[in-house]
Amino acid sequence: MILEAGNYDLDTSEPTVLMHETDCEVLGVSEGDRVRVSGKGSAVAIVSVSDTLVVPGRILLPHSVQEAASASPGDPVEVAISHSPDSVRSIRDKMEGRHLDAEEISQLVDDVVSGRLSRIEIAAWLTALYIRGMDIDEIAAYARSMAETGDRISFDDVRVFDFHSFGGVPGNKITPIVVSIAAEAGLTIPKLSSRAISSACGTADFVETFCDVDLDSDDVRRIASDVGGVFSWTGATDLGPAGDVFITVQRPLGIDPRPQLLASIMSKKVAAGATDLVMDIPLGSETKVRTIEEARSYARDLVELGHTLGIRVECIVTYAEQPLGRAVGPVLEARECMRVLEGDPGYADVADKACICAGALLDLAGSRDGAAEARRILESGRARSRFAAIVAAQGGDPCVRSEDMVPGMYTAEVVADRPGFVRRISNSAVVSVAKAAGAPGDKGAGVLVERKVGSKVSEGDVLMRIHAEREDKLAHALEIAEEYEPIVVEGMIISHVGPGQ
Amino acid sequence: MILEAGNYDLDTSEPTVLMHETDCEVLGVSEGDRVRVSGKGSAVAIVSVSDTLVVPGRILLPHSVQEAASASPGDPVEVAISHSPDSVRSIRDKMEGRHLDAEEISQLVDDVVSGRLSRIEIAAWLTALYIRGMDIDEIAAYARSMAETGDRISFDDVRVFDFHSFGGVPGNKITPIVVSIAAEAGLTIPKLSSRAISSACGTADFVETFCDVDLDSDDVRRIASDVGGVFSWTGATDLGPAGDVFITVQRPLGIDPRPQLLASIMSKKVAAGATDLVMDIPLGSETKVRTIEEARSYARDLVELGHTLGIRVECIVTYAEQPLGRAVGPVLEARECMRVLEGDPGYADVADKACICAGALLDLAGSRDGAAEARRILESGRARSRFAAIVAAQGGDPCVRSEDMVPGMYTAEVVADRPGFVRRISNSAVVSVAKAAGAPGDKGAGVLVERKVGSKVSEGDVLMRIHAEREDKLAHALEIAEEYEPIVVEGMIISHVGPGQ
Repeated sequence: MILEAGNYDLDTSEPTVLMHETDCEVLGVSEGDRVRVSGKGSAVAIVSVSDTLVVPGRILLPHSVQEAASASPGDPVEVAISHSPDSVRSIRDKMEGRHLDAEEISQLVDDVVSGRLSRIEIAAWLTALYIRGMDIDEIAAYARSMAETGDRISFDDVRVFDFHSFGGVPGNKITPIVVSIAAEAGLTIPKLSSRAISSACGTADFVETFCDVDLDSDDVRRIASDVGGVFSWTGATDLGPAGDVFITVQRPLGIDPRPQLLASIMSKKVAAGATDLVMDIPLGSETKVRTIEEARSYARDLVELGHTLGIRVECIVTYAEQPLGRAVGPVLEARECMRVLEGDPGYADVADKACICAGALLDLAGSRDGAAEARRILESGRARSRFAAIVAAQGGDPCVRSEDMVPGMYTAEVVADRPGFVRRISNSAVVSVAKAAGAPGDKGAGVLVERKVGSKVSEGDVLMRIHAEREDKLAHALEIAEEYEPIVVEGMIISHVGPGQ
Repeated sequence: MILEAGNYDLDTSEPTVLMHETDCEVLGVSEGDRVRVSGKGSAVAIVSVSDTLVVPGRILLPHSVQEAASASPGDPVEVAISHSPDSVRSIRDKMEGRHLDAEEISQLVDDVVSGRLSRIEIAAWLTALYIRGMDIDEIAAYARSMAETGDRISFDDVRVFDFHSFGGVPGNKITPIVVSIAAEAGLTIPKLSSRAISSACGTADFVETFCDVDLDSDDVRRIASDVGGVFSWTGATDLGPAGDVFITVQRPLGIDPRPQLLASIMSKKVAAGATDLVMDIPLGSETKVRTIEEARSYARDLVELGHTLGIRVECIVTYAEQPLGRAVGPVLEARECMRVLEGDPGYADVADKACICAGALLDLAGSRDGAAEARRILESGRARSRFAAIVAAQGGDPCVRSEDMVPGMYTAEVVADRPGFVRRISNSAVVSVAKAAGAPGDKGAGVLVERKVGSKVSEGDVLMRIHAEREDKLAHALEIAEEYEPIVVEGMIISHVGPGQ
């Protein structure tokens, strides 16, 4: 069937074309079926049906389809029924619990990235993965296939170190510290970090308060070669883009199938050319990993997966029942991160975790006591100098100091309404308060946890300080704090003190 | 957020509203998230994002959302983030393999019918059902919940008989014969049949060549009360509409999870008020059920499910390795059906299967030898009289005869290219040829299978005759016949004879 192309600007994650219902009847397609649209090139897309948004004889094409089909609005295009891609069979095989080979997995990933699989097919795939799982060989093939869909970064003849956290612990601002220590010890460590998805602040969200994180693959390679370390944003490169397509279906489904999680992480490490990887697995009742058995099982899988992919993996299970350090939110976390580099002794848990993780990297590189060496590099101020060099290489001010980091001017305090001990801190409630205050979009917004688990408190002691850039968001954050009670003493009262200090 | 409503006429199976990307950012929603749209009423819908099809400050609403929200184009509506419905938890529970209770299942069905679950969530549900299955209590609850979503037909104080085939055998034109025999024996049998989905001709497709099948629930009840039997189209009633929503996701996924299949069938029986049901399970290498073990397992489940739902179920496993009778296609099947009622001895397999199925119904009603009684009713001509009465009640001509059924004028023959025996007939290839000829849309299109499995043939004998209403479709059907070789002797040649004949 020949139709005239029109423009359809609907930003969906699967290419969808709009046809009139009469044309659909003639062609024999219904809502959700696939058609091949051919101009000079050719593309497959999903059909949406309307009888008013498009006239008979026309087909509206989103930009991606216009490009693939080499057809512009006004051009005639040939429209034909297109059958399901072969990887639909692999989805059904996985439903049946069958093992898939590398070629089938690669075909599926390719079909996902090219938009040949529909969202409901991807949903079926993720559900099947969630229920049936994958063995290490399948996950390794899956990771390799995802890595092949995007950019690769390669370094000649050097070992490339990397560091990754499973996430789930608020205030985990150690990445720039770990990278600075490792780079200062002579390691090449081009660390790419994400922004917040459901959290209040990702590493990229706070690092960009003091330098540029928008570095492409070439920048990353160049800076890592020059100064050893990089702390950049994953999203500015194009490593393993398949993961991003899966995320658009995973997020509304609210599932994170284990093989998908592992393959997504490892695909980016493969694409980044990593040879040695330290993996932080935070363990806590509100993180992804909730029992030590589960943590050990993930650790075993990651080590084995690394072995299959040619990456040496060392896993560290870390305590995550409360935020790390005190600060949650971009500017606040940046300030605390710098204070640790400046030698401020007030954040022992942050410094300890950074030295343990950096130490594990040094151990992989051959150190006899990596943690002690990392500690020396941090305490001598050499980590701070290396940090300044990396910041400068990423376009920031190498002289930046913690005092330069100024949080939102609207503040409020949450105080204890009785004496007692802090029994429990809810990570998710802390995150909700920080997000209500405006983090991570408002860089100055966030919270400071003033009392950690086990602290003795008197009535009226400040448990938590909230910063915001807007008064209405501060009020909202206070409401959330009142509702969720993030720091449990034995109940508490809330008093609103700001604006002003 | 207050936006101005506009009209969005996009015929998707889940209510989707179109918002400008700026408004989405302010509200904090992305493609695929849910919003609640409130005018005087309120509705939940999925967000699509565009920056050209809609201007900032406006939201385009499909008709269903306008109606539920009581908002017309131009009205201000309140738009707010809406969280996932509770039944998303039930989907995850099923992924984990947990048993769901009746209330959870009912909530899920309700969320599906009201459009509160997205297509990817329904895809995840169907995939989980496919892999995890359901026990009989869950399937019964599922069937009851689906029945509750639509119309119910009720008959006071009479037993209501029903008859159902799993399908998969082309030319299965026995329904009007079975219904006529059973009604003549005094049973109430309001049989609702489907149209072809992937086949060449559903029961409703051929029955409508001689009477009206578009009967609503009231018509069905009235006619069944008057003349005992009805052979109408399921789609004209509103029994168990939930099944139709699931189909829109199942079809592109290409899966038919067993609990879904069983619950869909039984939901319509529950809604139709059936008390006694005979179930035909065709067994063959190209049907849904491919082994006798599988057939027995379905039969056991159906009997037990019936028991739980208060319906007496009798299952009959039937031979389905080749088409039933000779005709496939609406007019051709109607003609063959009438010939059997008229006493033509040329279609023994059709008459036998009809008498066995009708006999099983009579057995349920208390007959001592239902099959023999059914045979007497058919052979005496009483079934034909009852058929005429039902046809009249459904607005058809009671004097209609097989000669009145005139198939398409363009014909061709497929002949044997060597002597031998018919070794195999492919049901799916026969269906493909009939569909290529135009069935079921072109009523006169279809095929006549002239030689069945085991027949001795000489070179040049006609194996299959094709009828079409259009010459181009006849040519297409011949191509398909050449490609798929539906009747295997030992190769064959094809010669084109029509038009004429």
